[in-house]
Amino acid sequence: MVGELPSQRLKAAGINLLETRTTPAGRYANVARHMGLLFVAGHGPLVNGRPVITGRVPSVVSVDDAVKASRLAALNCLSSLADHVGNIDLVGGIVRIFGMVNADPEFEQHATVLDGASELVADVFADSPPHVRAAVGMSSLPFGISVEIEMIAWLKEG
Amino acid sequence: MVGELPSQRLKAAGINLLETRTTPAGRYANVARHMGLLFVAGHGPLVNGRPVITGRVPSVVSVDDAVKASRLAALNCLSSLADHVGNIDLVGGIVRIFGMVNADPEFEQHATVLDGASELVADVFADSPPHVRAAVGMSSLPFGISVEIEMIAWLKEG
Amino acid sequence: MVGELPSQRLKAAGINLLETRTTPAGRYANVARHMGLLFVAGHGPLVNGRPVITGRVPSVVSVDDAVKASRLAALNCLSSLADHVGNIDLVGGIVRIFGMVNADPEFEQHATVLDGASELVADVFADSPPHVRAAVGMSSLPFGISVEIEMIAWLKEG
Repeated sequence: MVGELPSQRLKAAGINLLETRTTPAGRYANVARHMGLLFVAGHGPLVNGRPVITGRVPSVVSVDDAVKASRLAALNCLSSLADHVGNIDLVGGIVRIFGMVNADPEFEQHATVLDGASELVADVFADSPPHVRAAVGMSSLPFGISVEIEMIAWLKEG
Repeated sequence: MVGELPSQRLKAAGINLLETRTTPAGRYANVARHMGLLFVAGHGPLVNGRPVITGRVPSVVSVDDAVKASRLAALNCLSSLADHVGNIDLVGGIVRIFGMVNADPEFEQHATVLDGASELVADVFADSPPHVRAAVGMSSLPFGISVEIEMIAWLKEG
Repeated sequence: MVGELPSQRLKAAGINLLETRTTPAGRYANVARHMGLLFVAGHGPLVNGRPVITGRVPSVVSVDDAVKASRLAALNCLSSLADHVGNIDLVGGIVRIFGMVNADPEFEQHATVLDGASELVADVFADSPPHVRAAVGMSSLPFGISVEIEMIAWLKEG
């Protein structure tokens, strides 16, 4: 429905932001704000702060599971954003998603995998302009996670 | 010549922006604008919306062809920018190019490949400050494309 | 000590910015400024403008040496920033570090490697808000460098 807030859209879809936020894997922060831009660190498919989908796509992890990993990593990003600004409704929208798939060398379905993240973001911020995306295949990712998602968001004024 | 518009520079060089713009490979947009910044999605070497240079560099695709792929991917980016803002002359310049080469593990000539994109951008926006660049080697890219280019541009004021 | 300038922190830690700045490996610049943001090109672990740590991690280069490579690449970024704005004390802080490790396919310790860069940045800009980071594994990097670091920084006003 036009005009609904992100929190209302999440509730209507039965999606909860994660209570256990990502602990940065080093000396950095989950979110850095400059002017009206919110830079979100690379996030993986974590539940309770632990990776739940690891391994290369598709030899170890199926494309279907990689789609779930992509969506879950994006949910971790949104949860970190909400934590940083205090309320997901203060986030105006997402400008950029950078989606990195821990993929076998012959993999070509990165776009399918990344739609897990893009669908979530497009649904939650349905009234905002759409994001751009780059989807790529990495030869390795930290802790063996199957997907890593980085974002740039923007803060509502006022 | 100093003071020429990007459209004049393109014309003088005999370069046409692509009429068939990239169709995003998922639920995202080719360009997202926030304040004066224009974020451009990852684009491949497409003609008529289809990848024309695919395969790993240099075992399947030569360095020379990868340079062409890099330039063509950048031309797709510029075409999407023109489409988004209505006129390439409204784009003030390019701030950042992220260039991803679908490369064999022992490949080291990423800089040579990316100059295909950088030369095009530097020529078209010859009166603007130069862009920065990161060139890297990916173990796989969507649809097997040989090069993927992502950009950040800025919008002229007024 | 709270309130010290980046140049004072560097001096206290016995760290010198590099006199020989990176020569861009193509037709681009080391730093591009737009509004208050400073985009820094991908930099490698160079001394006197030449790569000193090359090869895959950990089969050729140990994790310890990769940490050094990460720190050195970040120092090259800071040196380019100082060169561009004239004085490192005009840089307000670092918003984003993108850390790319030339890694074996089974590598998982990207976070450890990237802390080499993050520790340097966090120490030099100890009074600024922390940066975000994405750490990933590449199948190849230009000239075989072991780590490549890209940054986004911001300029102090006034």
